[in-house]
Amino acid sequence: MQSLQAKASEWSGVDSADAFAVDDTNLFQKLGLQTFVNLSTNFYNRVYDDEEEWFRSIFANSKKEDAIQNQYEFFVQRMGGPSLYSQRRGHPALIARHRPFPVTHQAAERWLHHMQQALDSTPEIDADSKVKMMNFFRHTAFFLVAGDELKNKQNQQVPCKHATSSSHQACKNF
Amino acid sequence: MQSLQAKASEWSGVDSADAFAVDDTNLFQKLGLQTFVNLSTNFYNRVYDDEEEWFRSIFANSKKEDAIQNQYEFFVQRMGGPSLYSQRRGHPALIARHRPFPVTHQAAERWLHHMQQALDSTPEIDADSKVKMMNFFRHTAFFLVAGDELKNKQNQQVPCKHATSSSHQACKNF
Repeated sequence: MQSLQAKASEWSGVDSADAFAVDDTNLFQKLGLQTFVNLSTNFYNRVYDDEEEWFRSIFANSKKEDAIQNQYEFFVQRMGGPSLYSQRRGHPALIARHRPFPVTHQAAERWLHHMQQALDSTPEIDADSKVKMMNFFRHTAFFLVAGDELKNKQNQQVPCKHATSSSHQACKNF
Repeated sequence: MQSLQAKASEWSGVDSADAFAVDDTNLFQKLGLQTFVNLSTNFYNRVYDDEEEWFRSIFANSKKEDAIQNQYEFFVQRMGGPSLYSQRRGHPALIARHRPFPVTHQAAERWLHHMQQALDSTPEIDADSKVKMMNFFRHTAFFLVAGDELKNKQNQQVPCKHATSSSHQACKNF
């Protein structure tokens, strides 16, 4: 079984060095808090107005302002700023927190479509940061698609110590 | 339903401000890479030699050197150093990656017992850093116990858009 990281790289077309180039510079220091707030506001304005009902409905039970805050606090924390997200909500636990949602290849592409547009219409973000962020988002989106597939494996799950040779292999590669 | 963070605080006795006080100073810069390698080596030497078979067996299908590297790379990344963990394995995704293991209250306490001993026998770690790290570890261990409980909810899981009033509530609080 491929690892989560290998699947994310293959499906996104972004290798892990490019995905985590967001860590080469401190993007929070470079861009500032307000830029992240603007980006997430811009992003969720598009999502909540999406003409594609199947995608818009994924967010239907969350308030837009909560979605915006959760997102920009995570981005700030992950990109070199204070740990706003964890102080309020704990570890990001990205796969587990996306568990209630159908994170398919199609949903990842739709998310990325809106994020590309949000980045392109947030002029405070320079071209180099934009490329780094988009690589990070693209790899992460498909990392979550890979994580989503774990849900379907739930019923086959056995503790590693009792694993058969095939599930043992899955256990090691997870 | 309580949030993961609220459960972690209640069960660990560590509130989120104390848990994430690891972010008040850059512990990686203060302690250096070798200290984290030493801590994780010290910790897993104890775990793999644990006289309690039930706990030792949780790790039986992982190589000790892999367990050590996964742990210190995560600690380094989370405590202000380079993103060694994500470059190699992707997002920490702490709850999902612990899914194969029985993360019970008892297992959390046993993990913490070994970590306290490992911290106490790693003299490069000063007293203040030790307190901050232990608060972080204690809160995180019980955050993972809270995450472990989600496995049992798998079969009741419904997409939020189709949620009944009670599962809708769970969905919002997750």
